[in-house]
Amino acid sequence: MIDPPRAVQPVLPGDGLVVGADIGGTNLRVALADSSGRILTCRRASIAGVRDPFQVVARMRELVCALLAELSVAPTALRAIGAGAPGVTDADHGIVIATSYLMGWTDVPLQAHLEDAFGIPAAIDNDVNLAAFGESRAGIAQSVDDFVFLAIGTGIGAGIVLNRRIHRGSSWRAGEIGYLLVPGVSEEPVDHGDPGPFEAQIGGEGIRRQWLSRWNPARTSLPSDLTATAIFDHARAGDALACEVLRDTARMLSYGIYNLALVLNCPMFVLGGSVGLHPVLGDELRSLLRQRDDRTVPLLVPSALGDRAQLTGAVHLAIDVATNALR
Amino acid sequence: MIDPPRAVQPVLPGDGLVVGADIGGTNLRVALADSSGRILTCRRASIAGVRDPFQVVARMRELVCALLAELSVAPTALRAIGAGAPGVTDADHGIVIATSYLMGWTDVPLQAHLEDAFGIPAAIDNDVNLAAFGESRAGIAQSVDDFVFLAIGTGIGAGIVLNRRIHRGSSWRAGEIGYLLVPGVSEEPVDHGDPGPFEAQIGGEGIRRQWLSRWNPARTSLPSDLTATAIFDHARAGDALACEVLRDTARMLSYGIYNLALVLNCPMFVLGGSVGLHPVLGDELRSLLRQRDDRTVPLLVPSALGDRAQLTGAVHLAIDVATNALR
Repeated sequence: MIDPPRAVQPVLPGDGLVVGADIGGTNLRVALADSSGRILTCRRASIAGVRDPFQVVARMRELVCALLAELSVAPTALRAIGAGAPGVTDADHGIVIATSYLMGWTDVPLQAHLEDAFGIPAAIDNDVNLAAFGESRAGIAQSVDDFVFLAIGTGIGAGIVLNRRIHRGSSWRAGEIGYLLVPGVSEEPVDHGDPGPFEAQIGGEGIRRQWLSRWNPARTSLPSDLTATAIFDHARAGDALACEVLRDTARMLSYGIYNLALVLNCPMFVLGGSVGLHPVLGDELRSLLRQRDDRTVPLLVPSALGDRAQLTGAVHLAIDVATNALR
Repeated sequence: MIDPPRAVQPVLPGDGLVVGADIGGTNLRVALADSSGRILTCRRASIAGVRDPFQVVARMRELVCALLAELSVAPTALRAIGAGAPGVTDADHGIVIATSYLMGWTDVPLQAHLEDAFGIPAAIDNDVNLAAFGESRAGIAQSVDDFVFLAIGTGIGAGIVLNRRIHRGSSWRAGEIGYLLVPGVSEEPVDHGDPGPFEAQIGGEGIRRQWLSRWNPARTSLPSDLTATAIFDHARAGDALACEVLRDTARMLSYGIYNLALVLNCPMFVLGGSVGLHPVLGDELRSLLRQRDDRTVPLLVPSALGDRAQLTGAVHLAIDVATNALR
């Protein structure tokens, strides 16, 4: 799916542009933005089954060329590129240390690949970190110093911003909350790369499995195979079994959010990802967190950037790189 | 109990001293230190049953006078005072927002009380935060930027240091991990001020209750009423029931440490407090954490400062205050 067209402002001659890229497990999205971070145009391409990083970068180059042609801008206008990768990423050295089985990357020097392919400075980071960075720079969290971005899609991850900087951790793994241990999850150790016990229950895929395991034609008239967001839609419409799955999902997720709030005591949590953005989930979570603790409950807000949070963060990463390169 | 006497170095004329104070639920400790943070002498007094903050400060003043007399130093040598309080503390404004039922303080302007009583600049912080600060400045964590100090005594708290600064949180509550929700704890909401579900199980008092509830003369020859550290001593000596309590305590604690490590990805956890310092607990925890995840497991080390961690942190807080006052 191509993003809906946006009104394109005239690009002033001499003005530089940056590239933002969001590398997902199955999709690649690329945007061109001006120096204020405004996305001028963006495109998406499937990279399902593409595991070779060089091929991913080549695909990215094709998209960028198409976007430049669309804006009638020469490649010399490009100042920097920022890219988000779905895995543990050493942002200092520009290396993707590990991704899930979908990509299967280990120690990929993605920043160097991008700089070779595009001939401009590049920077990379973990995709959830970039989503948090996007919300911090241009989204719902612009006014707070500390917050957590919760990305709930197939799996679950957190991007942690403290003092307006991404907290990445000593081995680039901060916020890997798919492995959180809360009441109700499996206590069995799992291998890294496999889904963690927390996301195995309440990530999109986990919610789908919850539904499937409880599904019974005597209890619902809905089909046995539904996505997490469809289940939440049906909960809103009043299906009792869907409401049960929503409630159990929200309860477990509220435990995770509560734990994060206890540790970090940050004033805001931003809900993102296709599952995280579903309004019934947010409502249920707010109610549960208030019941648990009415004094330290953080503000729970939906992502303002939606499915562009990561791309926006990548754009702002590129702007920082371009700005530093000028110094 | 008075701390064992230490060799006192001659205090150079004109050299300033600082006061460090550790206010506990039942005990008050006060130290005099030189500008390097070296504790020259310290004393302890009971404040069991004393709830009035003015009385606590008056008791502190008596101890300081006695220490000055002991060193034959005039009160004019005192440059600043740093104090740790057992509760949520607004370090910027010097206010103890809330303590447990033992003290029952709410919005006590302790910093102002100290400055009025001593006539020198003062600063205050939460006691666990100060223990972390002590380990960071003068203890086991001097070489790391990020770490967590786990204080396990009657209850459980964490002092979080990120980029060598205490992470206090937006409402001064960061690290209140006594309320963590991990597999096996009660999921019922509890009032703040009451012990949290995590510490209710595996704080010193919780461990004592675990023992009591499992105690059975057919299973052990030990008495039914034992402290947590005594139970751990007996686990080391091989008592099967004590081993069971140790194992269950360590398993639940390892879940909490693992959660903190997932969120923060910090390379070191420092175990402190009378229960946390017991060596069999550390050994059991290290083994459990390695089994769970051999890649992101943090280094688990005992506090180097032991029961002086908080006092040392208070001394270094006072040094910072004195240094800033000179600027």
